[in-house]
Amino acid sequence: MTTLVIGANGQIGRQFCALAAEVGEPIRAMLRSPKQRPWFEERGIDTVIADLEGDFAHALDGCDQLLFTAGSGPHTGADKTLLIDLYGAIRSVEAARERGLSRYLMVSAMRADDPQAAPEALRPYMAAKFAADAYLRASGLSQVILKPGRLTDEPATQRVAASLEETGGVNTISRANVAHALLHLVKARGLVDREFVLLDGRRPLAEVLA
Amino acid sequence: MTTLVIGANGQIGRQFCALAAEVGEPIRAMLRSPKQRPWFEERGIDTVIADLEGDFAHALDGCDQLLFTAGSGPHTGADKTLLIDLYGAIRSVEAARERGLSRYLMVSAMRADDPQAAPEALRPYMAAKFAADAYLRASGLSQVILKPGRLTDEPATQRVAASLEETGGVNTISRANVAHALLHLVKARGLVDREFVLLDGRRPLAEVLA
Repeated sequence: MTTLVIGANGQIGRQFCALAAEVGEPIRAMLRSPKQRPWFEERGIDTVIADLEGDFAHALDGCDQLLFTAGSGPHTGADKTLLIDLYGAIRSVEAARERGLSRYLMVSAMRADDPQAAPEALRPYMAAKFAADAYLRASGLSQVILKPGRLTDEPATQRVAASLEETGGVNTISRANVAHALLHLVKARGLVDREFVLLDGRRPLAEVLA
Repeated sequence: MTTLVIGANGQIGRQFCALAAEVGEPIRAMLRSPKQRPWFEERGIDTVIADLEGDFAHALDGCDQLLFTAGSGPHTGADKTLLIDLYGAIRSVEAARERGLSRYLMVSAMRADDPQAAPEALRPYMAAKFAADAYLRASGLSQVILKPGRLTDEPATQRVAASLEETGGVNTISRANVAHALLHLVKARGLVDREFVLLDGRRPLAEVLA
C-alpha cells in the first residue's frame, strides 16, 4: 500500500513526504536526480530516480496509488508548463491506468476550473491545469482532485475552508496546510471521485475533506 | 448548413475559405478584428467578429458544424500555445457541445499523438495538441481530427498519403493540400469519429479521406 509521489522534491512535495515519514505512511519519492536523495534518505523515505519528461513507468512498481504534486510552477516558462504540468500529468495518468493503480491524487489549483477568472498572468498555467484535470476525470481512474488557492509559506494551522464564500474572499492557503491535507487524502483510501477547493480557514481538515 | 471557421484568417484558414467560397459551400469566417474583414467580403464570405480568448459563443449562431484551424503556431510563445491551441480549442469544443452542433472538425498535427516523438522544440506545442484532441475525443461530439505533417507553402497537388510508411518517410504536406482536404471533410457530413494523418502523396484526397 505504497503511494508514489511525483514532484516529491517540490515545496509541497517535501513537506508532504516529511509528514508521511513521521507517521509511517508508506511512500516512494520520485526524484529526477540522485543528488536529491540525501534529504529523503535521512528521513527514511524510499526513493526512485525517474524522469517525468522521459521514462518513469518503473517508478510505479509496487505502488498502489499515485500523488501528482509536480509543477513547473506558475512562474517558469510556459514551455515547461506544457511539458510538466500538462503533459507530465497526462503521461502519469496513462501510466497509472496501465498499471491498474487503485487511485490517483492530483494537486490542481482553485482557478483551474475557470482559467478566464484567473489573473491574466496565470491564465496559461490554469489552462494547463484545467486540461490535465479534464484528462484525469475522463480516464476512468478512481481519483481525488485537490484545488488549493494561492500558496503561501505560512506555518501549518490544520484549519481550512472549502470556498471563497466560507473565507469571506481570502484566497490563500499555506503549503504546510496543503501537505497536511494530502496526508489526510492519501490515508483516506475510500475517498474517490471527489474534488476539493482548499483555503486557509477555521475548520479541521477532516471535516472539510470528508 | 453553415460551418463556423475558427482561425479563418490563418494561413490554412484563408486558403480553405477561398476554396469554400469558390464552390459555394456555406461558411462563416470568425475574425478577431474588423480590419480582417475586407479580404473575406471581397470573396462574398460571411464573417463574424469574435475573440477566441474572450466571448465567441455568438459566432456559432445558425452554424451546424465547427472547423477549428486556429493556431498560435509552433513558433509563437508557449503562453499563446496554452491560451489558443489548448484552451481556445477546449472552449470551442464546449461551445459546440452546448449548442448541440452536429460535428466538430479539428486541425491537429501528425505528432500530436506522440509528442515524445517530435523534435524537442516542437514538443510543448504537440503536448497542447495532444490534450486538445483528447478533450475533443472525450466530449461526445461527432468529430473528425485531421493530422497534417510538417506544413509547406507548395502549391496544391490534391494528391496525398495517410502515413509515413506510404510516403517512404516524407513528412510534409502543403497548406494548400490541407485546405483542399478540409473542403472535402466539411462537405462529407456523414464522416464522423474518424482521424486522418495527411501527407503529400500520390493518391486522390477522396480516396485517403474515405
